[in-house]
Amino acid sequence: MIVELINTGSELMLGRVLNTHQQWLCRQLADLGYVVTRQVAVPDTGSAIEQTVREALARADLVIATGGLGPTSDDLTRDLVAQLLGKELREDAAVLAHISHIFERLKRPMPERTKVQALIPEGAIVLHNPHGTAPGLAMEVRPNPFRADGKPSWLIMLPGPPRELRPMFTDSVVPLLRHELPLVSGFVCRTLRTTSVGESVVQEKVGGPLQRWVEAGLDLGYCARPGQVDVRLAASGSSAEQRVREAEAVVREVLGTHIYGVEDDDLETVIVRLLTERKLTLALAESCTGGCIANRITNVPGASAVLLAGVVSYSNAAKQKFLGVQANTLAEHGAVSEAVAREMVEGARRQTQADYALAVTGIAGPSGATPDKPVGTVFIGLAGPSGTVVARQFNPYDRETFKQITTQQALELLRRTILSGGRG
Amino acid sequence: MIVELINTGSELMLGRVLNTHQQWLCRQLADLGYVVTRQVAVPDTGSAIEQTVREALARADLVIATGGLGPTSDDLTRDLVAQLLGKELREDAAVLAHISHIFERLKRPMPERTKVQALIPEGAIVLHNPHGTAPGLAMEVRPNPFRADGKPSWLIMLPGPPRELRPMFTDSVVPLLRHELPLVSGFVCRTLRTTSVGESVVQEKVGGPLQRWVEAGLDLGYCARPGQVDVRLAASGSSAEQRVREAEAVVREVLGTHIYGVEDDDLETVIVRLLTERKLTLALAESCTGGCIANRITNVPGASAVLLAGVVSYSNAAKQKFLGVQANTLAEHGAVSEAVAREMVEGARRQTQADYALAVTGIAGPSGATPDKPVGTVFIGLAGPSGTVVARQFNPYDRETFKQITTQQALELLRRTILSGGRG
Repeated sequence: MIVELINTGSELMLGRVLNTHQQWLCRQLADLGYVVTRQVAVPDTGSAIEQTVREALARADLVIATGGLGPTSDDLTRDLVAQLLGKELREDAAVLAHISHIFERLKRPMPERTKVQALIPEGAIVLHNPHGTAPGLAMEVRPNPFRADGKPSWLIMLPGPPRELRPMFTDSVVPLLRHELPLVSGFVCRTLRTTSVGESVVQEKVGGPLQRWVEAGLDLGYCARPGQVDVRLAASGSSAEQRVREAEAVVREVLGTHIYGVEDDDLETVIVRLLTERKLTLALAESCTGGCIANRITNVPGASAVLLAGVVSYSNAAKQKFLGVQANTLAEHGAVSEAVAREMVEGARRQTQADYALAVTGIAGPSGATPDKPVGTVFIGLAGPSGTVVARQFNPYDRETFKQITTQQALELLRRTILSGGRG
Repeated sequence: MIVELINTGSELMLGRVLNTHQQWLCRQLADLGYVVTRQVAVPDTGSAIEQTVREALARADLVIATGGLGPTSDDLTRDLVAQLLGKELREDAAVLAHISHIFERLKRPMPERTKVQALIPEGAIVLHNPHGTAPGLAMEVRPNPFRADGKPSWLIMLPGPPRELRPMFTDSVVPLLRHELPLVSGFVCRTLRTTSVGESVVQEKVGGPLQRWVEAGLDLGYCARPGQVDVRLAASGSSAEQRVREAEAVVREVLGTHIYGVEDDDLETVIVRLLTERKLTLALAESCTGGCIANRITNVPGASAVLLAGVVSYSNAAKQKFLGVQANTLAEHGAVSEAVAREMVEGARRQTQADYALAVTGIAGPSGATPDKPVGTVFIGLAGPSGTVVARQFNPYDRETFKQITTQQALELLRRTILSGGRG
């Protein structure tokens, strides 16, 4: 099955926004077995959209286009597709009623312009949008004048805002695909997520042992991100499930505890799960990461059962006031030191009575460096029932990468400690 | 000038990673006047990469490809391009020395496999990579066998990791473009960022007044994101600068203080700038946003001069201990209440002696709702020299969107208070 994704939006071409649809839709589709073979982004101009939709319909069984269904003057997709396929646009009473209802609920006047979103090309299936005003549209192009063999294609158009597109995909597009474009051959993809080991080393360790499976058609891929390397195993066909399962066992054997999770698991998800299962609590004291660890932990539903408190102790006064760091420790060793990390983490644990506490103090840059403590220097403290450890790391990167990698290292230190049963 | 971007990587097609290159490169190129006309992502298979490079060379004056230059077995771009253009690969001694040096500095053994990154297609310009092992490559395809008129194209290949690609683009690609592909006509793009007003309303307000400029060729676009709508004004040609400047004046007249910044300005950047200029300090007390506000503020270089402390008071005990919230206030009103928001924000200001404090308490969901306080209910408190205000908001979205929108509202409340000179 040939699947293509088209993202429309001049803001994409001008780099004004990040194209999160690509990842999300490709991921959802791959997990269902519809691997996207090509993704194209084009500006909101009539000619670019028309040409791209036409080319995709000439190649693909399924074309999904995002954006251009809204109320503003640069929303052209609905009109262009109707024109390209020779369909008239008709106002749909149910869609119009839904749009009015949304404005009533928000107690806002309904701008005249929003009504264009109730125009539907004849023959199109309306995909209900409970989270916004623009409905999605699905059309079977049959016969398909753009394909040499006339084979039909499905064209699905989804609204741009992610919080509208995502539930619409799950609730309306998935059932439609299962019904209209059922899959004949299996596809299985498995991602193993590792941390604290580099990309070349991962490849050196797993490449050899997996060679037999790769020769038999396993698709083996790697993806490096700050503080993380993913190993991706994918296969198609009737024995896909078994081949991926065997390959996973090999990778687990070779990489052991470097693998912290699978698929979309983030370290924070794994940690909230571990702490919840073991009925343990956590406190945080962050200086240089500035709330990044707390923010990641609290993105996980259920975090409130394990996270008692976090302190972003950016100033020395805050380190003293909230965590009980001693003035003479700060004066003698400086805020970025093993001694201060130790007092921060022990203070956070003492103040909150948490089972575990994590603390970080370091130099994110661009300023703040000293001759013996360059930008990137960081001390990560962990206090638990078995005592306190402080690790020194060196992450000489830009400010945001520094925060991400340091957060990753702190969470990994916590994960390993919990797993090793560091309960005193 | 026709500019195309190719992003290679099966992990992109499988939705395992977000394609941040598209936004970053499109943005950099647009600001230089090289607006990308098409972006394509394809998997790491020989045929897909070869076909896409071939098609792009048939159309474009400049083709930029990312990824596939690393050391692993799915890094195919270097080999495929050499083959497509009929060039031999030769080991470059300087590149090899650089790779060895990187492993020495990290005190790690150099895996044999990393040496492939020193192979350079004959005639290619090596783009130095100070942040990684894979160099970039630039080649002029002249004569160009793929273009009907034989017009030459530039093909530039960049490594996948963003912290390698970005400095390489700035330091090596920009000078090369300026020298080899100088622009003939001007291009100006200006983005005005607004908050606390919806997309339809923005369009209703600015669409009419800007019609005259749009008819004269101004490209007017909108982009809605959680808690934010961007208005984009772009024009080409010799009078581009003037037309965009005039249009900006119209938008500023109509939207007034809803415009909080321009281009890449985030609310946090604007706030750190405002506080720094006025020598003011800030403290944060976050419950439901869980460190999101602190994390955004501390992403801004220089934040340490204005942010004294933040408390992520996820538990009631933390609200009492660190912020002095009264037990009976919690018992009587509940943790999500105007009264608790008031005590939190006043406590944060009192404990830290900051000029301003922000506090949020709410229900991020998915659990925690009560009949009169559904998921999405949030109280935002601001305390400053002129006193305390608490605003109630309703943000019934998924957990991460809730955190983002609430953070945006809190920062906007702070921005407006500082701007109105709320200094008592």
